[in-house]
Order: sequence, then structure tokens, then C-alpha cells
Amino acid sequence: MHATTIHAAGDIRFEEVPDPQLKRPTDAIVKVTAGCICGSDLWPYRGENRIRPGATIGHECVGVVEEVGSEVRDIRAGDFVVVPFCHCDNTCAHCRAGVHSACVNLGGTTSGQAEYARVGQADGSLVRTEAPADDDALLASLLALSDVMPTGWHAAVAAGVKPGDTAVVVGDGAVGLCGVIAASMLGAERIIAMSRHEPRQELARAFGATHVVAARGEEGVAEVRELTDGIGADAVLECVGTNDAMTTAIGVARPGGGVGFVGVPHGIELPVRTLFERNIGLRGGIAPVRRYLPELLTAVQERRIEPGRVFDLALPLAEVADGYRAMDERRAIKVLLRP
Amino acid sequence: MHATTIHAAGDIRFEEVPDPQLKRPTDAIVKVTAGCICGSDLWPYRGENRIRPGATIGHECVGVVEEVGSEVRDIRAGDFVVVPFCHCDNTCAHCRAGVHSACVNLGGTTSGQAEYARVGQADGSLVRTEAPADDDALLASLLALSDVMPTGWHAAVAAGVKPGDTAVVVGDGAVGLCGVIAASMLGAERIIAMSRHEPRQELARAFGATHVVAARGEEGVAEVRELTDGIGADAVLECVGTNDAMTTAIGVARPGGGVGFVGVPHGIELPVRTLFERNIGLRGGIAPVRRYLPELLTAVQERRIEPGRVFDLALPLAEVADGYRAMDERRAIKVLLRP
Repeated sequence: MHATTIHAAGDIRFEEVPDPQLKRPTDAIVKVTAGCICGSDLWPYRGENRIRPGATIGHECVGVVEEVGSEVRDIRAGDFVVVPFCHCDNTCAHCRAGVHSACVNLGGTTSGQAEYARVGQADGSLVRTEAPADDDALLASLLALSDVMPTGWHAAVAAGVKPGDTAVVVGDGAVGLCGVIAASMLGAERIIAMSRHEPRQELARAFGATHVVAARGEEGVAEVRELTDGIGADAVLECVGTNDAMTTAIGVARPGGGVGFVGVPHGIELPVRTLFERNIGLRGGIAPVRRYLPELLTAVQERRIEPGRVFDLALPLAEVADGYRAMDERRAIKVLLRP
Repeated sequence: MHATTIHAAGDIRFEEVPDPQLKRPTDAIVKVTAGCICGSDLWPYRGENRIRPGATIGHECVGVVEEVGSEVRDIRAGDFVVVPFCHCDNTCAHCRAGVHSACVNLGGTTSGQAEYARVGQADGSLVRTEAPADDDALLASLLALSDVMPTGWHAAVAAGVKPGDTAVVVGDGAVGLCGVIAASMLGAERIIAMSRHEPRQELARAFGATHVVAARGEEGVAEVRELTDGIGADAVLECVGTNDAMTTAIGVARPGGGVGFVGVPHGIELPVRTLFERNIGLRGGIAPVRRYLPELLTAVQERRIEPGRVFDLALPLAEVADGYRAMDERRAIKVLLRP
């Protein structure tokens, strides 16, 4: 098949690789209907993470089950499925506790930006739904369920957003924008999106943001404090992963507030004294996608949310390298790829 | 009056100081019935915090209101009151949000180990109750409500202890022991107290601990993991404030678990990657004592809890220096002082 591979920083190729095979009896092979590029794929693309030259890249997709292993019971060939970026058995103690990202049988999609993907723990991981025939908007929203929407949701849940709250979203990438949707679904009354980019500000407003703060750093913190009568926000979604973003997130939280963080931490130093003195809670991590999928899938199906709008560029899979460039240069929020 | 003063590390004196005066119309003067020494008083005693030579020390007491300022409405001379270690107006936005320790009118007791204490924001801070005539055990439990019991409770609330949970308490000081009481009140099914000292282990069991782990560091973490079938604890109460204690607390938490920390942080470096990878929540800080007082006072009055048992040494106030030595040398868990 053809798949996306990374050979070095900035070196994305679309090339022939061996077809994925069932390795375990709990595996499934999925023919990809649509895949996409994740903000976290940009870390290796920018040389910030180690690269194994020639490795396939990509971990989000939706598609049609092609083949299942001998122990797969619920999922069948022909099913249209959402593929969560982390695979889990949905039965172990950690899954039962809602922390599917710590599943004892955890695995990851080997090739989400490809013609086919291998999925481990197919019964536990995959969620079946009706194929969105000729409905590109619905397809995009289903694809968003494989990672960014549940990750934004996780930020909001981890931050503890409650009805009536003031929530701040730090980060205007696809996850941050989905965090705005999540804060809105959870009943936040005021949602302040911190964003400098006009198209993203617009989307944030469309998703439910009531205020936009374009300033960053101390100035941004001061603006949020002013908007909140000097009190600060009840809940803050940190959707970037840098020390600046975390500093801002903690800075805008009110005493007793919560920060939910889902950006993979890069260079963050947590100020334990500040957290202590202001009683600010911190919780986050890799989203337990499978836990949230049923609820979010229903919201998408009922057209209550449209997370697929974060895809502002769709490309043929063969042009994946252009997609990476567009996201790296912030010309695109998120790129959808169709084989 | 006579009060306890600190002049240098290890130099505690009981000496004549000016009587406290009403400074603001919202103040009250309380004649101390009983005060005590806090684990946090040992930081300056051991030279770990800066000292202003001759300053009074102590911030926990119960007593009888002697005099109130002109704007005090609810509290009257003659009332027997519990004095929370931090004073608050109980009406500002932060108090209304339950974060009394961030009150915009925050203040602290100027002399808890003395004959008299000045209390700010008397109406907001003080909680009136019946004087415990001739009942030393009740007096001790009421005194524990001024700091250690609400602080242990805050650790349990911040850790998110729920009915059926497995909770671990790191630290066997008075706060840790009160944390055991709190975890039990909040319905934890298994409570693992980490303690090396037999009298404290016994008290922990009396307070509801179902297991005691004497080992520390990696060995202690391994023992807790074994006790929890390799899963870890749902909620962990960090009641020390050192990096070792925090490392242990995070190490014994299950993925998705919560760590509540109430020990004043000294030298803690938070491992953000570990928190992220294991989705461990962290929350804590200075306890909003006033928020918890009504509920905990009822529990004490109904004899459902006996936090006063943490006082294993009672001394005349004049012998306060001996009390510091006893706590410093870990001969006493907590020392009660009677003028």
C-alpha cells in the first residue's frame, strides 16, 4: 500500500510500504476513508522528537473494516468505524476506571495517514457508526472524534468545567478549538479563547467562545483577569504543551480553579508554590478517547457539535507533504487527507 | 500578657509582650483556653524559614471572646470559639467559591501560643460552640479544628476521595493522621497509612487505616502497589511537603488517580511528564478552614470523630519550649498548651 513516512525533520514522503497484516488475533485491518495530520506530528516534523527514518506516521483515521483477527467478536468486516488514536481492550482495571490511555493492552495505530491501518484490540478500541455517504462535513466530524475532539473534551473534563463557569482556552490549534466546543457542552457561561489568528478566533466564536484575548504572556493574563473582575477563571484548558502556555494557564486561573492540560509537555516546569498558595488543581494527560467516544459520537450524529470544522484544508493523501507544510506554517489549522 | 516568642532557630521563649489590641473594627480579642504547636512551626524552629527575632509564634487556638470591635455583629464577648488559623471575611468572591484561604481580607492569628490572641474578620472567621466544660477530650478535638483536622480534610477533598476508594496517606504527623479520619469519613474502603512509628501506626488504625506500610521510598511504593494488585491508589494524601513525600505520593497513585497535597512545599520538583503520562491529578494548598468548620464541628460534637487524639502531650503554656523540643525530636505527635 501507499503510506506516509518520515525520514528526517521536514522530510515527509508518500511511498510504497508493506500492507499491514493482522499480527494478533485481536487486531483489525481498516481501509482508511479519511486520515489527518495531528499537531503532535509536527514535533518530529520539526525535529523536536527522535525519528526512526522511514517509519510510518499518523494515528487518526476513520474507515471501513477490511479484516478482523480470529478473536474479534463485535467488529466485523464492512463496519464503518472511528479509530481512536490509542487502542485499548476496554475491559482492564484502568479502562474500567475510565483511564483507557493507561490500558494494560495499550497500542497505537501504525499508519493513520495511509491506505490501510492496523488497529489493536479491535473490539475494545473501535466504535462502529453509519458510513457518512456523500456528507463531507459529517465525515470530517467523525474523523475529529479519533483524537482532537476527545482530547479537547479531556482538557475540559480535567479542568473541571461546570455549568455557569468561566473557562479559558489556551491554544487555538484544533485541540484548543475542540476545547471550546467541550467547555460549551459542559455549560461554561463565559468562554475566553486566547488566540492571535483571525480565522481561528472566528472558529472559536462559532464554537461558543464569548470572548477572545489576542494578547499573550503577562499582558494576556492581565486581560483575562480584567475580564473576570480580577478573580480569574474557574477552569483553564491548556492545549499547547509549552512552558509559556502553562504559565499563562496557571496565571489566569482563580484561586481554587482547575487547569486541564492535554498538550504533550515540552519544557514545562510546574510552579509548585504557586499551585499551593492559590489552591490551583492540575490534571491532564493523554485523553482516554474510547471512554468519551459514545457520548461525543451521539453529539456529532445529532449535529449538536461540528468538530470537523477544524479541518480547513483537505488534500489527496498523496499530497500529504504539502499538508505538513501548511500546518507547520500555520496556513492550515488541521489537514484532512483522503486516499 | 505572656506569649511564646521565637528569637532564633531552637530559641523559643515564654515572655511578657504587650497585650493584643483591637486594631480594626472587625477584630476580636480571644482569651485562649488552649493553643498548640503546629508541624509548620518547626520550620522556623529548625532554621528552615526566616525568623524575626522576638516575634510571637503560634496560630491555632480555642478560647473565649474577650472583646470585639465596633463592626463585629455576630460574635460577642463571652462566646466560646474555634479560631481558624487563617482569618477571612466569609463573604468575598473567593470565600463564596470555597477558597477562604484566598480571602481578599485574609489575615492570621498573631499569637496562638499565648494568653490572648487577636483575630481579624471576627464575624467571618470565628465559629461559636458550647464551651467543653471539664471535657479535655472534647476540648482537644475542638482545638484540632483550628488547623490540623481541616487541613487533613482538605488533603482528602483535594485528592478526590470517594466512597469505595483505596486511599493512601503519606505522612504520619497530626495532619496525616487527621487525613486518615477524613478519608474514612469520605467513605474510602481501604486506607493505607505510610508510617514507621508504632504509636502513630496505632493511632492511624484507630482513625480508620486498614493497612500500614512502614517502608519508605521505592520500597514503600512497591508495597502499596502490591497491596493494590499492581493498580495503585485512587486517592493519595500528601501531608509532608518534601520532595520524597511527593515522589512517593505520585508513585503510589493509579493512572487517573488524584494526589491532594497540604504539606507546605519545601524543595518539591513536580514531574510533569509522569503526571501527564499517567493522568494523575494534583490539587492542594492552604486549607480553607472556615469552609469546612461547620461540618467538622458537627462531627466532633456528635462524637463521630476524635481528632483531638493527635495531642499526645499536654503542657502548661509556660513550658512551651519543652513542647517544641518534644515535637522536634518526634517524642510527641502534637502538643497542647494550656495557659
